[in-house]
Amino acid sequence: MKSEANCLIAQSGGPTTVINASLAGVIEKALNGTNIHQIYGAINGIQGVIDDNLLNLTDIFKDNDSTIQQLKTTPAMYLGSCRYKLSDFTENISDYSIIFQTLKKYSVKYFLYIGGNDSMDTVDKLSSYGKSINSDIKFIGIPKTIDNDLECIDHTPGFGSAAKYIAASILEIAHDTYIYDIESVTIIEIMGRNAGWLTAAAALARNEYSAAPHLIYLPEKPFSTGRFVTDIKEEFTRRKHVIVAVSEGVKDIAGTYISAESAKTDQFGHVMLSGTGKYLEGLIKHTIGCKVRSIELNVLQRCAAHSSSLTDIEEAFQLGQYGLDAALKDESGVMVTLNRTSNFPYTVEYGTIPINEVANLEKKIPIDWINEAGNDITNELIEYIKPLIQGEAPIKYIDGLPVYLSVDHLIKKK
Amino acid sequence: MKSEANCLIAQSGGPTTVINASLAGVIEKALNGTNIHQIYGAINGIQGVIDDNLLNLTDIFKDNDSTIQQLKTTPAMYLGSCRYKLSDFTENISDYSIIFQTLKKYSVKYFLYIGGNDSMDTVDKLSSYGKSINSDIKFIGIPKTIDNDLECIDHTPGFGSAAKYIAASILEIAHDTYIYDIESVTIIEIMGRNAGWLTAAAALARNEYSAAPHLIYLPEKPFSTGRFVTDIKEEFTRRKHVIVAVSEGVKDIAGTYISAESAKTDQFGHVMLSGTGKYLEGLIKHTIGCKVRSIELNVLQRCAAHSSSLTDIEEAFQLGQYGLDAALKDESGVMVTLNRTSNFPYTVEYGTIPINEVANLEKKIPIDWINEAGNDITNELIEYIKPLIQGEAPIKYIDGLPVYLSVDHLIKKK
Repeated sequence: MKSEANCLIAQSGGPTTVINASLAGVIEKALNGTNIHQIYGAINGIQGVIDDNLLNLTDIFKDNDSTIQQLKTTPAMYLGSCRYKLSDFTENISDYSIIFQTLKKYSVKYFLYIGGNDSMDTVDKLSSYGKSINSDIKFIGIPKTIDNDLECIDHTPGFGSAAKYIAASILEIAHDTYIYDIESVTIIEIMGRNAGWLTAAAALARNEYSAAPHLIYLPEKPFSTGRFVTDIKEEFTRRKHVIVAVSEGVKDIAGTYISAESAKTDQFGHVMLSGTGKYLEGLIKHTIGCKVRSIELNVLQRCAAHSSSLTDIEEAFQLGQYGLDAALKDESGVMVTLNRTSNFPYTVEYGTIPINEVANLEKKIPIDWINEAGNDITNELIEYIKPLIQGEAPIKYIDGLPVYLSVDHLIKKK
Repeated sequence: MKSEANCLIAQSGGPTTVINASLAGVIEKALNGTNIHQIYGAINGIQGVIDDNLLNLTDIFKDNDSTIQQLKTTPAMYLGSCRYKLSDFTENISDYSIIFQTLKKYSVKYFLYIGGNDSMDTVDKLSSYGKSINSDIKFIGIPKTIDNDLECIDHTPGFGSAAKYIAASILEIAHDTYIYDIESVTIIEIMGRNAGWLTAAAALARNEYSAAPHLIYLPEKPFSTGRFVTDIKEEFTRRKHVIVAVSEGVKDIAGTYISAESAKTDQFGHVMLSGTGKYLEGLIKHTIGCKVRSIELNVLQRCAAHSSSLTDIEEAFQLGQYGLDAALKDESGVMVTLNRTSNFPYTVEYGTIPINEVANLEKKIPIDWINEAGNDITNELIEYIKPLIQGEAPIKYIDGLPVYLSVDHLIKKK
């Protein structure tokens, strides 16, 4: 007989193409061989817990393995997201009271939150508050972010698929660029506020005939517009088509974003950027005067599920399963993590770490993985990323288009 | 014994993901069961003929079926492109003399040019000049363009793959958008100067749970910024997330491009645009003030070969084969074409038409395939596009990335 221990899952932060694979992992595990009675999903992250807006996932997914498989390859968040930041409970207890009321109402014993940096902060706070009131609810963080900027994990789920999309797109853009017999500069702007992992992934596009991207600029090293123009001119002594990968977050020596004029700040104090590529396009037009185009890969970096990495999907799924396992073993206040045990062949092992060691930290690229001139990366960094893009997503197509799971419950009608 | 009749192929205009499939079709046909002795490819279109810059394709592709298969799915142009416009030979004969010298030097009897509108103009001129000097060289045009704006053909090769990429991307962007529980407008800017075919393809993203794109604006109907804001407000009475597909080429009632401030003119007198989406993003920010994002799908629309339509690849291949067949049957001054003989099931037949009936004309969307309000398309138009995106490209992946054929010969080193 099943007990009255229920499980609640929610998702938060920005999308990746495999955050639903982690959700699928939790659901699949909870439905098979555990004593969990009901699996609930909160709509729009912690906001859904506050608003008592839950979905019964047991009803939707039990006896329906093909739906779980479809969830595994559906982009963004099946449960929706939020950008709600909890105050410290020592400052304002009201959110905590409401959240724990909901958890009690639904007999939740295991709470799993799939998200990035800010979401791990939420798990940390809920876990601490729980301890302070002697609650026996287990709080587990399951990581995700295309940015790969979480500490205490070899790499984050979502990063590999974004890296694969970026590398494949740059290879295709290179083919597009090479056809004209004129000097040209193509600038590809890639996501990443403070960490250059995604921009570095552009280097994987290189193969035996194409050296593109020929220049790579990351936020970890100060960016000089003068040096940028010199670099391009130097490339023109070697080749006709110069292809550049640049992070949206490159900053000058004073720490000012190159795209500073269009900068805004979101609720978490992050600077939101756009326009680095456009700015540099104008700069090249003005200084060199050759054909120049800037391309912003934009949100498809994080949502083009048809080109997800199979390795990434499977790891995200495993992390979901491992997270529920940890909760069932009475762990709490931890984030599940993965550790690379070997690169040739590539192997990982799963584990947990105290979440307060992770929350609010940001992992950047080690400086010795960037070349001295600050316009390329080292082979070590390429070898680090390469295993993460392996394998293709098992996407089903109907009528010429990928088939994803309906998110009708998120599409708010009035 | 093989005769000394040789074949010359070149490619021109903007890239598509299947223009190399037509080249593969010609090569495969020429190598098997014809009397053609040598197959040459001109590097960078007609410019390569003028410069006597040819590649021996027989040497590269004979006895190498897997290389032909790889060529079939490689994006952009294996032979490179140009934007060289021939003068009328009655005005300036020098280019013609040089071109026909090259053709004579290489014993070329069949000249096939794969390209769009402007390239068909080149074939028309070369064929007319050839007739005027009693040359027996056969000139054949093989159409391609993502824009689908050629006359006398049901649809152009390249369009189906671009349409598939656009529809899949919009479905994925919709998933990305639905996750937040706040009002938002997402504007997706799609290629197409004067014809809205590509923007119309966005409608194929609609499925049983997602009605995105909710609004579609084409260049065929005058665009009003006031009406645009009203349309968005009206959508907000029904839904929270409004997703808009807009052509880069929308114009106001006076015929002025909405993005007019950034307009330039290329060698063929085409206005080059960018910034329609960005302009509308600013407009919504200013008038409605909700969350708004604009996304330019950019060159990936025409080069993302990993998501090509199999139907498109096969038709492009067949057109290449049919083109060489027509030349061997002594046709000249014609473009190969395809005619849809049935939509359910979808069938086509191949044929030829005099190229002067095609060159320099532009096929737009019939006005009765656009709704009265000018913010959506009719079901007839959706049914017209749907068969063209069917089937997935047989892309080979190695190390997590699509494998394309080397274009080392185009990557100019100094």
